[in-house]
Amino acid sequence: MPADGTSRRSFLQGGAAVLGGAALALGGRAVVDAATADPADAAAPDDAAGRATVAFRGERQPGVTTRPQAFAAFVALDLVDGFDRDALVRLMRIWTDDAERLMAGTPGLADQEKELAAVPARLTVTFGYGPRVFEAAGLADRAPGWLRPLPAFGVDRLEDAWTGGDLVLQVCADDEVTVSHAVRLLVKDARTFTTVRWVQRGFRHAPGTTPSGTTMRNLMGQVDGTRNPDVGVEPALVWSSDDAGPAHAGSTSMVVRRIAMNLDTWDELDRDGREKAVGRRLDTGAPLTGTREHDEPDLDAKGPNGLTVIGPFAHIRRARSENTAERFLRRGYNYDDAPAPGRLSNSGLVFTTFQRDVDAQFVPIQRRLDELDLLNEWTTPIGSAVFYVPGGARSGEYVGQRLLEA
Amino acid sequence: MPADGTSRRSFLQGGAAVLGGAALALGGRAVVDAATADPADAAAPDDAAGRATVAFRGERQPGVTTRPQAFAAFVALDLVDGFDRDALVRLMRIWTDDAERLMAGTPGLADQEKELAAVPARLTVTFGYGPRVFEAAGLADRAPGWLRPLPAFGVDRLEDAWTGGDLVLQVCADDEVTVSHAVRLLVKDARTFTTVRWVQRGFRHAPGTTPSGTTMRNLMGQVDGTRNPDVGVEPALVWSSDDAGPAHAGSTSMVVRRIAMNLDTWDELDRDGREKAVGRRLDTGAPLTGTREHDEPDLDAKGPNGLTVIGPFAHIRRARSENTAERFLRRGYNYDDAPAPGRLSNSGLVFTTFQRDVDAQFVPIQRRLDELDLLNEWTTPIGSAVFYVPGGARSGEYVGQRLLEA
Repeated sequence: MPADGTSRRSFLQGGAAVLGGAALALGGRAVVDAATADPADAAAPDDAAGRATVAFRGERQPGVTTRPQAFAAFVALDLVDGFDRDALVRLMRIWTDDAERLMAGTPGLADQEKELAAVPARLTVTFGYGPRVFEAAGLADRAPGWLRPLPAFGVDRLEDAWTGGDLVLQVCADDEVTVSHAVRLLVKDARTFTTVRWVQRGFRHAPGTTPSGTTMRNLMGQVDGTRNPDVGVEPALVWSSDDAGPAHAGSTSMVVRRIAMNLDTWDELDRDGREKAVGRRLDTGAPLTGTREHDEPDLDAKGPNGLTVIGPFAHIRRARSENTAERFLRRGYNYDDAPAPGRLSNSGLVFTTFQRDVDAQFVPIQRRLDELDLLNEWTTPIGSAVFYVPGGARSGEYVGQRLLEA
Repeated sequence: MPADGTSRRSFLQGGAAVLGGAALALGGRAVVDAATADPADAAAPDDAAGRATVAFRGERQPGVTTRPQAFAAFVALDLVDGFDRDALVRLMRIWTDDAERLMAGTPGLADQEKELAAVPARLTVTFGYGPRVFEAAGLADRAPGWLRPLPAFGVDRLEDAWTGGDLVLQVCADDEVTVSHAVRLLVKDARTFTTVRWVQRGFRHAPGTTPSGTTMRNLMGQVDGTRNPDVGVEPALVWSSDDAGPAHAGSTSMVVRRIAMNLDTWDELDRDGREKAVGRRLDTGAPLTGTREHDEPDLDAKGPNGLTVIGPFAHIRRARSENTAERFLRRGYNYDDAPAPGRLSNSGLVFTTFQRDVDAQFVPIQRRLDELDLLNEWTTPIGSAVFYVPGGARSGEYVGQRLLEA
């Protein structure tokens, strides 16, 4: 079974689809015909990306170490007055049921657009709690110490419109229609309990448009996310273990930062300046001291002028700590919204990270970047939120059950 | 060569890609490995959708009869004071050059994010002119009579934010990063001539997620676009011919209507009510008098109660004219933006149509729908714009040259 939990059924369908495609390719002209095939032909083999599913049940929630899908929506919800532990349990039972159904490519229980559920496209739904959920549920003593707004950073220009939230939904899929449908159903499930605080949508390259394993590029043109840790090898960077007690086993945390890019001033910088700001080549993503994207940067290497090749304020130097515990999993998405009057664009990153402990892993790195990072010149954090991501729903459980009932 | 002009080169690459995928599928476990393959492996065969290109040069612009890509951005620009014919020619030369390069998967001339141009993903760029372009260029006498705002319809609740515009760019691709990059470059090209009036982005199912030839569904869950005419068979529905004179040969018109869906009240309708409102089954998209999506509706068929099966106000009855000239090509996209405070969603259609003559084809149908159409209950036009789409750039020409220099 693939590492990200794609089901055997969808994997086999995918394999069959590829074989079907090959048969057409061998026939030459037949491939062309496929593009205009009768839509009633249910055996058409070219929807493998739509049929793929990710397993919902498990000790940990999906959507964290799942290979990032092409599209994401992040929805922050605020609790209505009177929301209590019973309401939370009721909501999590409904959400669990609908998330499981949708991720399998079947409609939710009260789904009125059932047909839109038919393309799972590796849909994942990930639920997170802000500090107020613990208070409302009478579980403040179980809230991790790091579950609070991040410290104020000098670079921040936070807007209420993108900051905070009591609950979060991360909905990701390789199809945007699927994301829209799932978001709509899950937000409706919660309508008596919550109001929508913010919605952020993002994208990476669409399925089948870049070779598997390609690191995404952001809209500044940079390869973005090369040094993500391998959580399969180092699970403790992201996941709480049984040592954390039954309430927290399999949990993690999600930080959602909205980072605006000032592409107009970025345009004033030439390629050499851009590469020095980041410390990597624009074309390959290789560090300035290497030739391939995943080469280890040599932070001590000096150029003919006696200065370090990777400058003291280069992003990759500042984003890196001597302390190897200070790492986390990045899982961000580009955004590109309609520009404000008089502007050319409104682009940036929904910069999302997962880590076991926000204070121990995320905050120290963010402080380093806040103090000195050339990229601060062209990027501005305009939103920020921190969420606790409870463990997954094992067989018979609802998401969060071990936290709420342990 | 495929009907939509996908180049032979990309077609061959696509075929090879499928074969490569099949080889992996035959090996079984190897498919799984492909998902985590070394990103440096440039031979990875799974980016066929990203490599595909659409031909730029021709009598007609691309992006009209091109099989709809998964993503679109529509950008309306307003001319700055002093914009004249020389400025228009200069702008169209620059835009032509950049559109041709980008559609081939190569960077624009002043492209500062060259790497983002490497995934053409069937990119098309289509240029359109509002009435002011003809005035500014001193060519008011060449402007078609239909080139003006649509008549006011009773259902309209038009907002300035989505209405009008002097120039339009329609940028479509099977990859959203590609769309963003192209839009950014083309808007920058025009920055000394124009200001951005509105940007509307939309999506359909992503590549590889539904069988080829599947009609899109909108976010109300309906199959949407079944009765699109086959423009290959009836080109005169969309394209002006040589009879129109050299200035207009190969031209068409684009109407962009932003249609908000009130999903909250739509939810109050059960499936039977929804099917009656449209006149089609939700599951198959078949007319209520048929069993398959493309079955011809029988508008006279009566049910056991003696009433017509497809009701008098059903959308498919109202959208259909006795006059077969009153048809046009629909090429719309879903939108799903962040909801306003207190709302659950903000969804709808960027309803885009192409037709030879707006007054003769689009307006009569729109009047019929305005008078009586059950769907008006749940949909509201909030934006509207009409553009002239000049003929394409043949070898050595810029887009619009025959109009401007004939």
